Amino acid sequence: MLIVFEGVEGSGKTTQIQRSRDWFLSSGILDTLGNYHKPPPVIITREPGGTALGIKLRQLLLQEQSSSLQHRTELLLYAADRSQHVEELLQPQLDAGAIILCDRYTDSTIAYQGYGRGIDLALIEQINHIATGGLESDLTLWLDVDVTIGLQRARERGVADRMEQAELTFHQRVQQGFAQLASQHPQRIVRIDANQSPEAVQRDIQAVLRQRI
Amino acid sequence: MLIVFEGVEGSGKTTQIQRSRDWFLSSGILDTLGNYHKPPPVIITREPGGTALGIKLRQLLLQEQSSSLQHRTELLLYAADRSQHVEELLQPQLDAGAIILCDRYTDSTIAYQGYGRGIDLALIEQINHIATGGLESDLTLWLDVDVTIGLQRARERGVADRMEQAELTFHQRVQQGFAQLASQHPQRIVRIDANQSPEAVQRDIQAVLRQRI
Ligand SMILES: Nc1ncnc2c1ncn2[C@@H]1O[C@H](COP(=O)(O)OP(=O)(O)OP(=O)(O)O)[C@@H](O)[C@H]1O
Ligand SMILES: Nc1ncnc2c1ncn2[C@@H]1O[C@H](COP(=O)(O)OP(=O)(O)OP(=O)(O)O)[C@@H](O)[C@H]1O
Ligand SMILES: [Mg+2]
Ligand SMILES: [Mg+2]
Repeated sequence: MLIVFEGVEGSGKTTQIQRSRDWFLSSGILDTLGNYHKPPPVIITREPGGTALGIKLRQLLLQEQSSSLQHRTELLLYAADRSQHVEELLQPQLDAGAIILCDRYTDSTIAYQGYGRGIDLALIEQINHIATGGLESDLTLWLDVDVTIGLQRARERGVADRMEQAELTFHQRVQQGFAQLASQHPQRIVRIDANQSPEAVQRDIQAVLRQRI
Repeated sequence: MLIVFEGVEGSGKTTQIQRSRDWFLSSGILDTLGNYHKPPPVIITREPGGTALGIKLRQLLLQEQSSSLQHRTELLLYAADRSQHVEELLQPQLDAGAIILCDRYTDSTIAYQGYGRGIDLALIEQINHIATGGLESDLTLWLDVDVTIGLQRARERGVADRMEQAELTFHQRVQQGFAQLASQHPQRIVRIDANQSPEAVQRDIQAVLRQRI
C-alpha cells in the first residue's frame, strides 16, 4: 500500500509521517474477526531523494536553484528521480507487501511545477505518467495548512528564511493546486486540517488510515 | 542553422565536426551574385554535456552506468540535459544567427535508447518533443560506418576497451536505428559514407553543406 503525504512547506509532512510509522508499528492490525496480525514492514521514503541517484539529483536541483535551471529541465529531473524511485524502491517493496509512507509524489509536481511555475498541466501529467509507469498512490493525505502558518513554522525551524511577498504568492498558487487536485480526486486524496496541533492532526490521520486499511 | 552529426561510436563525429568548423570559418560564403560574405559565428556543442548542468548530468550518467540506473531514468536524464541545452544555448544562438554544429541530438536517443535498449519508440518521441520544445535540426549528417570499423577505431583511440559480442549486437541495433531514421527522414538526414578516409568524408560533407546553405 502506497500512502503519500502532500502539502505546502511546513504543513507537517515529515512530522506526521514519522508519527504514522510509529503508530503502524505499534498498533498491529485487527481483522474483521478481531484476530491480531503483525503489521507488514513500514517504509518511509521521499521525493526527490529516495534513491542513491535521487540524492545526487536532489543536490543538483538545490545547487542549481539560483542559477539558470530551466523550468522544463527541472520537471524532467524530478521525473528522472521519480522513475528511479518507482522502479528501484516503490514497486519492488509494494510487490513484497510493504506499507510505504512517501513524503511527496506526483501531486507535488502538479502543484509546484504546474500551478506554482505555470508549466502546462497536460504536459506534467504526461511526464508523471511516464515517470511512474502508471503507479498511483492508494491514499494521499493532503495536509492542508494556511500558507502563512506553514511558512511561519518552516521559518521557525530555521530552514526557509526569505519569505518575500513573491514567494508567498507562489506558495498560494501551490496551495490552490492542492485544493484543485483534492476536489478532482475525492477518492484518492483526503484533506486533513493541518492547522491543528500535531496530536490532533495525527488523530485525524489515524482515523482515515483505520478506515482505509 | 542547426547541423547535427550522428553515428555510432568511432564514426568520426568529433573529427568531422572540427574540420567542418574550420572549413566554415575559412571559406566564407559566396551569394548567388558571387559576393563574399563573412560567415556567421560557428559553435560546436554536444549532447550530453553542452551546458554546465549537462556536464554534471553527463558525469552522473557515466558514474551510474555500472549500477542500477533504470532505462527510463536514463532516458529522462538525457531529456533534462537536452531541455537545458535547447533553452540555454541552442535556441538563443540560433536566434542570434549562429551556425551550430552539434555532436548527437534526438536521433541518438531514438537509436540508442529505442533500438539499442528497446524502450518504446513512441515514448521516446514524446520525450524528445518535450525536451526540445519541437526544435529539429535543419540538417543531420549521419556518418555511416561499419560497426566493427567504428568500434575498432574507438578501441585504437583507447577509450572503448571491452568489445564483447553482446556490445557488438547492441551497436548493430543502434546502427539499424540510424538506417531506419535516415529512410524515414530523407530530407533532414543525409547519409555520409564514413568508411572512407577522413579527407574523403570531409569532402562529401562539404559537398552537402555547400548545397544546403
Ligand atoms: N501541527 C503543528 N503545529 C505546530 N508546529 C508544527 C506542526 N506540525 C509540524 N510542526 C513544526 O513545524 C515545522 C515544519 O514541520 P515539518 O517539517 O513536519 O513540515 P513539512 O511539511 O515536512 O515541511 P517541508 O515541506 O519543508 O519538509 C517543524 O519544526 C515541526 O516541528
Ligand atoms: N575516416 C576515418 N578513418 C580512420 N580513422 C578515423 C576516421 N575518422 C576518425 N578516425 C579516428 O577514429 C577515432 C574515432 O573518431 P572520432 O572520435 O571522431 O569518432 P566519434 O564518432 O566522435 O566517436 P565517439 O562516438 O566515441 O565520440 C579517432 O581516433 C579518429 O582519429
Ligand atoms: Mg519535510
Ligand atoms: Mg566523439
